Amino acid sequence: MARASSRPVRIGRWEAGTWTATGDEIAAEEPLQLLLDGEPLSVIMRTPGNDIELALGLLHAERVITSLDDVASLRISAETNEHEERIAVASDLIESNAVDVRLRATALRRPRRSFLSSSACGVCGATTLDDLAHDHAPLGPGPVIDATALPPLADRLREQQRLFEKTGGLHAAGLFTASGELVTLREDIGRHNAVDKVVGRAVLDRTVPLASSILAVSGRAGYELVQKAVAAGIPMLVAVGAPSSLSVATAVRFGLTLVGFLRGERFNVYSAPERVRGGRL
Amino acid sequence: MARASSRPVRIGRWEAGTWTATGDEIAAEEPLQLLLDGEPLSVIMRTPGNDIELALGLLHAERVITSLDDVASLRISAETNEHEERIAVASDLIESNAVDVRLRATALRRPRRSFLSSSACGVCGATTLDDLAHDHAPLGPGPVIDATALPPLADRLREQQRLFEKTGGLHAAGLFTASGELVTLREDIGRHNAVDKVVGRAVLDRTVPLASSILAVSGRAGYELVQKAVAAGIPMLVAVGAPSSLSVATAVRFGLTLVGFLRGERFNVYSAPERVRGGRL
Repeated sequence: MARASSRPVRIGRWEAGTWTATGDEIAAEEPLQLLLDGEPLSVIMRTPGNDIELALGLLHAERVITSLDDVASLRISAETNEHEERIAVASDLIESNAVDVRLRATALRRPRRSFLSSSACGVCGATTLDDLAHDHAPLGPGPVIDATALPPLADRLREQQRLFEKTGGLHAAGLFTASGELVTLREDIGRHNAVDKVVGRAVLDRTVPLASSILAVSGRAGYELVQKAVAAGIPMLVAVGAPSSLSVATAVRFGLTLVGFLRGERFNVYSAPERVRGGRL
Repeated sequence: MARASSRPVRIGRWEAGTWTATGDEIAAEEPLQLLLDGEPLSVIMRTPGNDIELALGLLHAERVITSLDDVASLRISAETNEHEERIAVASDLIESNAVDVRLRATALRRPRRSFLSSSACGVCGATTLDDLAHDHAPLGPGPVIDATALPPLADRLREQQRLFEKTGGLHAAGLFTASGELVTLREDIGRHNAVDKVVGRAVLDRTVPLASSILAVSGRAGYELVQKAVAAGIPMLVAVGAPSSLSVATAVRFGLTLVGFLRGERFNVYSAPERVRGGRL
């Protein structure tokens, strides 16, 4: 089976006042379970494809292996259809999206820790979507806003970003009211940190769950941002950049309105379009 | 003490054939040690500032706390100078860059895992720079290349990126020879994954350490990418986007040539300029 690194989706495209329901392609994002000698080590959010390389490259970066000589064999999910001339690969792992690296006794050392999925990934070593479902309350109906109210959010984010022009290296996250007023803006080298800071402010202000707010971010809408918005009870996430397949799937599951590619007089809606007046997929 | 979210650096700027040694500002990136009731929980790579918000937002996203009522008090490094009206904050933590959240008995639950610093962060729960120094061999001299050879790398990366135009959501990493030939290109939703895949390919091909190669990336040059380049023995990292303060510090420490903002006929050199002919800071 070929493993495309993009996935087809239905979107609602808004451009200068006109809605178009159409198809689009988004980047594929899926969790990969990495095992070491059969023991779960880490869950990596990645675009499927070249999973053997990903596993070996990560283990090399983490100093678990120093060369291919440290690897006895690999087991990988059958659906990946990956083989390598230079190493024994068994495509028989029953679990989907998994790779098991079997070490030789020569291998440098076991990792001191499971270099786990982290705040950036939001997966937390679990099977993600199912696990999330138990953890989070469904989102309420939330506000319904005009499409014309969205482009100004990106403009306001940029205006308020005191530092972006100076370094070009910071992500911004802004919490807005349904009428477009900026409540909190935070910047950080990590886009997930900027969102954590915004939500942390709301925890301090005792305004969580943020059931009538809009979260706008300067970068892409990866899975971890959708997960954090859902956790904070925010019904609408608006991104200047692209979403991923897993962020759209998660948004659909929890009924979050996910907007991407908000640039100038256009944007795409990927889920729960009913919160944007006239919106459809 | 004010905590600026940028840091001054010396750079060598190359533009259409002319070098300028000048000052610039880059985004600040430092590890924050997060403790829970005095026990180390996680290391977060972040831009300093609003650390209390960051800690509370992250704990909320991870369902450790549901509201401020779950938090008894906070201890934070004295240098942060952070206070909050709504919660008891002691600015007496001896360690720098640390925040300790003390929970009430009401708190939801202890996390099942340390949602640790991950492959994306590269920190691995340690004090990063010192720890890295023990793990990695110093980089060899590596190639010396002409400044004019760098802009084409970004062009080639873009040309070869089959999918970027289609989804707008993938990062690319390309391994090049010193004469500018593309050896491996990989794409992924995570920029660190794209680099892991490139290095994993080299592990399979038994070409690690990649002592005469150049790694080019489509996004920013965060700390984790510098760390991965050093781990693979790659002497030069070239990024279309911005570096961070920690990525520059790490590049300086290991003698990696770090190039950023490679766009059109210009780029900046942040460290080890001797590998770019005529380069200086």
